[in-house]
Amino acid sequence: MIAIFSDRAAIGHALAFEVALARAEAAEGIIAGDVAGAIVEACSGLKIDPAELAEEIAFAGTFAIPLVARLRAALSPAAAAAVHRGATSQDVADTVLMMQVVRAHALLLADADRIRTALVALARRHAGTPAIGRTLLQDAMPIGLGLRWAQTAVGIHDAAQAFDRDVDGYARLQLGGAVGTRAGFEGKGAAVAARMAADLGLADGPPWHARRTGVAAIASSLAILIGAVGKLARDISLLAQTAIDEAREPRITGRGGSSAMAHKRNPIGCQVALSAALRAPGLVASILSGLPQEQERGLGGWQAEGPALAELCLLAAGGLAAMADVAEGLEIDEAALGRHLEAAGMGSDIGESEALVEAILARLGE
Amino acid sequence: MIAIFSDRAAIGHALAFEVALARAEAAEGIIAGDVAGAIVEACSGLKIDPAELAEEIAFAGTFAIPLVARLRAALSPAAAAAVHRGATSQDVADTVLMMQVVRAHALLLADADRIRTALVALARRHAGTPAIGRTLLQDAMPIGLGLRWAQTAVGIHDAAQAFDRDVDGYARLQLGGAVGTRAGFEGKGAAVAARMAADLGLADGPPWHARRTGVAAIASSLAILIGAVGKLARDISLLAQTAIDEAREPRITGRGGSSAMAHKRNPIGCQVALSAALRAPGLVASILSGLPQEQERGLGGWQAEGPALAELCLLAAGGLAAMADVAEGLEIDEAALGRHLEAAGMGSDIGESEALVEAILARLGE
Amino acid sequence: MIAIFSDRAAIGHALAFEVALARAEAAEGIIAGDVAGAIVEACSGLKIDPAELAEEIAFAGTFAIPLVARLRAALSPAAAAAVHRGATSQDVADTVLMMQVVRAHALLLADADRIRTALVALARRHAGTPAIGRTLLQDAMPIGLGLRWAQTAVGIHDAAQAFDRDVDGYARLQLGGAVGTRAGFEGKGAAVAARMAADLGLADGPPWHARRTGVAAIASSLAILIGAVGKLARDISLLAQTAIDEAREPRITGRGGSSAMAHKRNPIGCQVALSAALRAPGLVASILSGLPQEQERGLGGWQAEGPALAELCLLAAGGLAAMADVAEGLEIDEAALGRHLEAAGMGSDIGESEALVEAILARLGE
Amino acid sequence: MIAIFSDRAAIGHALAFEVALARAEAAEGIIAGDVAGAIVEACSGLKIDPAELAEEIAFAGTFAIPLVARLRAALSPAAAAAVHRGATSQDVADTVLMMQVVRAHALLLADADRIRTALVALARRHAGTPAIGRTLLQDAMPIGLGLRWAQTAVGIHDAAQAFDRDVDGYARLQLGGAVGTRAGFEGKGAAVAARMAADLGLADGPPWHARRTGVAAIASSLAILIGAVGKLARDISLLAQTAIDEAREPRITGRGGSSAMAHKRNPIGCQVALSAALRAPGLVASILSGLPQEQERGLGGWQAEGPALAELCLLAAGGLAAMADVAEGLEIDEAALGRHLEAAGMGSDIGESEALVEAILARLGE
Repeated sequence: MIAIFSDRAAIGHALAFEVALARAEAAEGIIAGDVAGAIVEACSGLKIDPAELAEEIAFAGTFAIPLVARLRAALSPAAAAAVHRGATSQDVADTVLMMQVVRAHALLLADADRIRTALVALARRHAGTPAIGRTLLQDAMPIGLGLRWAQTAVGIHDAAQAFDRDVDGYARLQLGGAVGTRAGFEGKGAAVAARMAADLGLADGPPWHARRTGVAAIASSLAILIGAVGKLARDISLLAQTAIDEAREPRITGRGGSSAMAHKRNPIGCQVALSAALRAPGLVASILSGLPQEQERGLGGWQAEGPALAELCLLAAGGLAAMADVAEGLEIDEAALGRHLEAAGMGSDIGESEALVEAILARLGE
Repeated sequence: MIAIFSDRAAIGHALAFEVALARAEAAEGIIAGDVAGAIVEACSGLKIDPAELAEEIAFAGTFAIPLVARLRAALSPAAAAAVHRGATSQDVADTVLMMQVVRAHALLLADADRIRTALVALARRHAGTPAIGRTLLQDAMPIGLGLRWAQTAVGIHDAAQAFDRDVDGYARLQLGGAVGTRAGFEGKGAAVAARMAADLGLADGPPWHARRTGVAAIASSLAILIGAVGKLARDISLLAQTAIDEAREPRITGRGGSSAMAHKRNPIGCQVALSAALRAPGLVASILSGLPQEQERGLGGWQAEGPALAELCLLAAGGLAAMADVAEGLEIDEAALGRHLEAAGMGSDIGESEALVEAILARLGE
Repeated sequence: MIAIFSDRAAIGHALAFEVALARAEAAEGIIAGDVAGAIVEACSGLKIDPAELAEEIAFAGTFAIPLVARLRAALSPAAAAAVHRGATSQDVADTVLMMQVVRAHALLLADADRIRTALVALARRHAGTPAIGRTLLQDAMPIGLGLRWAQTAVGIHDAAQAFDRDVDGYARLQLGGAVGTRAGFEGKGAAVAARMAADLGLADGPPWHARRTGVAAIASSLAILIGAVGKLARDISLLAQTAIDEAREPRITGRGGSSAMAHKRNPIGCQVALSAALRAPGLVASILSGLPQEQERGLGGWQAEGPALAELCLLAAGGLAAMADVAEGLEIDEAALGRHLEAAGMGSDIGESEALVEAILARLGE
Repeated sequence: MIAIFSDRAAIGHALAFEVALARAEAAEGIIAGDVAGAIVEACSGLKIDPAELAEEIAFAGTFAIPLVARLRAALSPAAAAAVHRGATSQDVADTVLMMQVVRAHALLLADADRIRTALVALARRHAGTPAIGRTLLQDAMPIGLGLRWAQTAVGIHDAAQAFDRDVDGYARLQLGGAVGTRAGFEGKGAAVAARMAADLGLADGPPWHARRTGVAAIASSLAILIGAVGKLARDISLLAQTAIDEAREPRITGRGGSSAMAHKRNPIGCQVALSAALRAPGLVASILSGLPQEQERGLGGWQAEGPALAELCLLAAGGLAAMADVAEGLEIDEAALGRHLEAAGMGSDIGESEALVEAILARLGE
């Protein structure tokens, strides 16, 4: 995930944008074929030091200007004039972000699926295993332990599906030009956009420079997914308390140690996921705050979205991967479950836990 | 909307919950028919002072305990013992909240629809009307004015649809009992829930005491809708600046005056919507922060959701109703649009604005 | 606290503002003495139905306009013309809010002090009592139990002092007129403001219509106080878990019961405080988001502050009062502390816990 | 600022921590002098690849474990055993963070001071210059233009002072050991801490592992400073609108261009500051949400603070530096101010603007 959101990857996607644009414009007769060829070649040959570019970007306030300037410097005057034709900086920035989101999305869904699969197996195995159910942090009444895993699996499943749906619906090509009218494409903007979208593997659609509801939807869904995984982490960390010890994170070499207490087995996977769940809401709030953007391109609003969305993806990646490891290797101490129930004198009436697990798994298509 | 989230309405819904529960349990043979009848009758006759109950609720930390206590006091011992059977406080609180959300949702969608309809008409009328397009708060290049309205209409439309989808998917009956196992329903919990859901006009499903992703989805969608309407408010308030004056809120008696400057015509509709858009992100952040709830019922997390969700609905109601009035009565000064364009020497090449408007309206089914 | 932020109280403060203004203007010779007298009398006689006014306020978008209109209707034309002279709606709204904040502040500091006193006593009593120290939710090494209470007392003390400092520094009279220049006071604005501030019991200073850093500072300090109390609630709720049971909330009649499980003793005080700690950050975020307000009076920004700050005060009041009861009546099971330590084989080396407690109490002036 | 929060700087500070610890422990006779010497030498000779370490940190979930492991590998067994004695990972992480905050603080105050100085000069120069005052984005009544700058200067000044105060009060050494009892220092923990604090240039005090109110105070103050600067950016960007054009950002080569419209002069300094102001509130909310940390060291809470605080510093650095350039070079078009006032027929009664400017500057000590 760090690689997906690296400056290097962003530069690569930006050059891919310029390549796709040149090709599409050549195909539509807006620029000459050999000019497009020269642009494509220059993009593939361009060597850019991300650190150096980062400084220029910080200063220019936009990603595309220094990048396009370098590209132009590597071209003949005619080709230089044709580069980036009709497009604007935000077209590049938004498209690059969506290319990153699509790649992030694949990684995240894979980890969400690992968690879901592991939880479904746990739910099935423990559907009828009596355990103390706890409410308001107090022992309450017995549950079938599998019901807790099944419920958590539904939360993660629903959130992952919503994230998938929103990336599918909103991770689109951005191509609008200076004010979103596609004025520089000789009336062939829709065709250029369609070609570019196909080339870059993104969905097509009208420009969305100042309509940021899609970014907000993706960010919210992702935060809910992070939170749903955080629920799992909360529960496991509570079960793993020394005084309860009904479940434990798997032992993973190099993880969970303490620099002061070598004997401890810290729930580090849960820590990573809970930390992500703490940070995600604020990042979403920033993105939501930017929705009322000004006119055809906002001042400050959309520029704030990229880093916040990238951070959300990074947090999600850390949290989901950690909890996938935890869920797959979770150690449950059935003897402890029984001992605690007995000590509590609670009996083992787990109500309709098993039927509920079954109904939930059916809903998950399992 | 204030009525929907009033204490009075909440009490009414809570009694409806107890009525539906008693009826369903009688139908399933869990309690006697005449006992259920007595409960139904007591609920319809019960007079409760919301202010008095509010104090007891604040003290008890839950809604249902003092309410059920009063209900029991009005019943024979046998009926008193049968009231609320198998249910827990959170069952009542969550179901009541969802009944309120469903009602709020109907109001909000109606106002969103008013805005959308008004914007579609404006988009169509002004699809080819040249106007200055502005980016980063600077005059940039001409747009077809209708393109701005069409884009905003899409944002609001998408957000309203997502809100509709999430209310439809997640505003469900809550019925799980003490730890979510439906232990108190003699194995007939699913049937009781199905009957109650039908009775209360909510969707059915497994309990979701500690799985709060649905509430988070509803809240996020609503905040995005508020933000999409905020975008409209931002744009109109900027157009209405005295130095620009290309558009104005309609004059509404009693609104937009100034206590110090009688000549001013303040964009109060926009103010209400922008204020809502400022507050919504923080409320969503609170709800998202609560996702990692503890075990079978969280401590502090779910209790924070109700007020935050209610506040979101109230803010949305204010913002949407205000902007529906504004959109329907928006005064656009076409002469000013032309004058400004000419002064800027920008010409009137609005690119593919008209085609984009058409494509967008088609996407909206218009 | 509910009374402090009631509509009724706000109306009372607003009328007090108009009274103080009339008196100050008469003293400075801006309006006639008998006119001021008539205004003062009318204010004291005015009967206003808060519910009715609330609707007009929602519609007008400001608090002062309908209020001043009613006041004027009760006066002779000459006095009606003199009412509210030189002031603007925001002067009233901000001053009223600060009057409410000052009153809220007194209540909150009293409860913070109760908690602090109770914790200091616990810290002293248990400075040398060995208990299991826990990190990352794992048993780690022994601590002197009093050290935990002392540390929490410092957090609450520091936060309460910061809140006190910020209210003291920023809860000031607002008096600037239409654009903050005090243009309507015949050059005597500073004198009028000084008189009014003294009359209303607020600090004086230049107007701050669009400079909202003071409100943001008050809100942030308050949220930190809420969070510091939340830390206490988190710890007690974890200690009160059935499997640990080293501490318990005091039994308070009518609180902490469960509608489904009569045997449970729920940590409801902690729940209230944790719920407040969950909600406060989002409310602060809204207020911080509004800082970049437009020009001489923002559109949407300052209007969002009042409800958010009121909600923060209400949450703080609930959380602090609940935890004051908890701290004062906290039941600590020393036998359990010892038993658990022994079972863990941890010995009882509590390091420098006692010296640290002493150092901390000294810092608190105890 | 990027350098201050770089991994390289963090590693350097962490080694400085170990050096200071070894020296202090040697001075107090806890470890031998030659052992301390060997540690100091090893720290100065250690070559660490930040990228490589970053991966290990991500995996271990803590900063100190892999770092200390490398340090130990470079030492004799005796010295290896003495390294890090009595300390825990969080001691290192928190102390490093505070060393970074102290350095960030110096940079930020310098830029805040540049802005303040520039605004004071503008306030003085334009104290009596009539300009249109605007409220709710509408032309309202004249102000002395300098009053706006003076008000903004106060906001920034107050916020900078509060940030300074909080860094001064809370950027302290962390030294508590495993559970905050300083158990590993043979009763000399206070002396060791005092020596280390002096050595590292930080304030001394009791450990604060789970008492995070100081971090929250620093973060809130910083966000308020960012917001106060955002207010300046909002106003300048509105004044710079093409239709108003009463003020303009200075022309800075390489900044403010548009990749699609070469003629535009975009307010990029304002954009950077407004973008920071949009992101800061959410970051603060995350830090506030973490206040109710568990027991002697939280799970997920404190781990979330570092990145959020670093991001706040980076945003502040960008926004303040950009607006310092803008404020120092701000171009004000006095002719436009006069022309607009005249066109509005507003006269030039600027009320008590000049006296207010004087009072405000006096309060600022100018």
